[in-house]
Amino acid sequence: MSGSFDLKAWMQPHLARVEVALAEGIAQPSPADLGEAMRYAVLDGGKRLRPLLVLATAEAVGGDMAAALRAACAIELIHAYSLVHDDMPCMDNDVLRRGKPTVHVQFGEAQALLAGDALQTLAFELLTPQDGSVSPQVQAACVGLLARASGYQGMAGGQAIDLASVGHRLTEAQLRQMHRLKTGALLLCSVQMGAACGAAVLATAHAALQQFGEAMGLAFQVVDDILDVTADSATLGKTAGKDAAADKPTYVALMGLAPAQRLADELAAQAAQALQDTDLPTERLAALRALCDMVVQRTH
Amino acid sequence: MSGSFDLKAWMQPHLARVEVALAEGIAQPSPADLGEAMRYAVLDGGKRLRPLLVLATAEAVGGDMAAALRAACAIELIHAYSLVHDDMPCMDNDVLRRGKPTVHVQFGEAQALLAGDALQTLAFELLTPQDGSVSPQVQAACVGLLARASGYQGMAGGQAIDLASVGHRLTEAQLRQMHRLKTGALLLCSVQMGAACGAAVLATAHAALQQFGEAMGLAFQVVDDILDVTADSATLGKTAGKDAAADKPTYVALMGLAPAQRLADELAAQAAQALQDTDLPTERLAALRALCDMVVQRTH
Repeated sequence: MSGSFDLKAWMQPHLARVEVALAEGIAQPSPADLGEAMRYAVLDGGKRLRPLLVLATAEAVGGDMAAALRAACAIELIHAYSLVHDDMPCMDNDVLRRGKPTVHVQFGEAQALLAGDALQTLAFELLTPQDGSVSPQVQAACVGLLARASGYQGMAGGQAIDLASVGHRLTEAQLRQMHRLKTGALLLCSVQMGAACGAAVLATAHAALQQFGEAMGLAFQVVDDILDVTADSATLGKTAGKDAAADKPTYVALMGLAPAQRLADELAAQAAQALQDTDLPTERLAALRALCDMVVQRTH
Repeated sequence: MSGSFDLKAWMQPHLARVEVALAEGIAQPSPADLGEAMRYAVLDGGKRLRPLLVLATAEAVGGDMAAALRAACAIELIHAYSLVHDDMPCMDNDVLRRGKPTVHVQFGEAQALLAGDALQTLAFELLTPQDGSVSPQVQAACVGLLARASGYQGMAGGQAIDLASVGHRLTEAQLRQMHRLKTGALLLCSVQMGAACGAAVLATAHAALQQFGEAMGLAFQVVDDILDVTADSATLGKTAGKDAAADKPTYVALMGLAPAQRLADELAAQAAQALQDTDLPTERLAALRALCDMVVQRTH
């Protein structure tokens, strides 16, 4: 089944809708170049993995696709804000992102700080349209999921562990906890928000989608650690080898390259099994399955 | 009527509820001192003007007070996050806030950046309780209002103007626009969220409350500019005279001290008139009226 699914053909219109919706979402005039800095941070050809996961999940559960498109953009804005702030001198101090100067290099630190702040806010604005196009129930559910995934017990908490752990040797459990929060929470949230756009999904499907999101999210990070070692900066579009150089704990540092690769494959298998456990029609799951394969097999 | 209203007696239990709710809102364990930095930023005896405005408005319209308490905490978290980021070296570079070292001085810049980010997120988390205690309609309305007031077309936009305007001479219209966004938007939003906690407020009352919020919000900033010149650091709890020293545009710089004082009084009179125009029962408006008086007559 998954062999016959053409992910590229599925992605193309979905990506186009996300790009248009993101551009429209930040199109309003804004004072003093703030909107320009925000657009620079977001409209730059990111992979849009999280938005695609939202849309694929919403399709799998037969959800409201107008609501899903808003959720897709919202989670990309949260991801984008976290990158803008992460790159700042007081954090990772990175000057290159997706092959371009980072926001603070281009616009200055103060503007980068504000742009990141405003991108986070805009995520919650997009989730709460005032034109009646999304039900209050779905609005409230998506805001609740996104806030919990990205806050101090989610993504921001994971970044705090990351900050505190440089130069320390973590156990695999500690490393997993860091990644579960720092990267995994948003990837899982993509699946959860997609599911929340469906009116009535069975509890079994919900639980299995949750397991899918968790396994896929961790696989993403393990592969990220592998790529930091095996890929070059040009392919990655960001500085390669920087985790190792900064003495950051990674799966490769902890367990070695080949075992990390095996772990990624295991997690991918767990994710595929979880999809099957949803009991949703196989053809509706094809895009989610293919996206998960892409996460594990990607080269950048 | 307003002469017989005891604001202090009204404030005491309301402040106590806000402090308890804020403390409970950030009580969850969080990795790597992040929660500690957030608590340091918030639980420090701020004036809680915005929360009090939410609660007073919700009472005026006979609103859901459980929802209003969440909205009150949420807007204080947004205010607190903006102060944490504003104080950072790349922005105002201030080391003193409410008589204490600022968050980045106490916890480091990276942690201050993260704590500000996570305080913003937590605001939206508090607005979307998952226990059914607030209706999805009120949740969605409050998130929509708060996101729009604090984002790139609200508070963050005002901060961008502020950044860009240092050393420039603004017209009164430009200065008013900056303050309408930078400080006014959140103060107005306090009133709007309070009103949104009421089920069915008449359109006249809504429009008049909006005018009240706008006039009071601008009065707040004019008084702030006056205090920057007339008060000392010990009274303010922050560095006095820093706007003048930084060559920032202020009402006092633009029009002089006595005219700025007259403007503040005029705006207060407009706000009082708007309250009367709500046609709500006078006794229900007493707290809002007294809070507005406090804004204009405050010494810090």
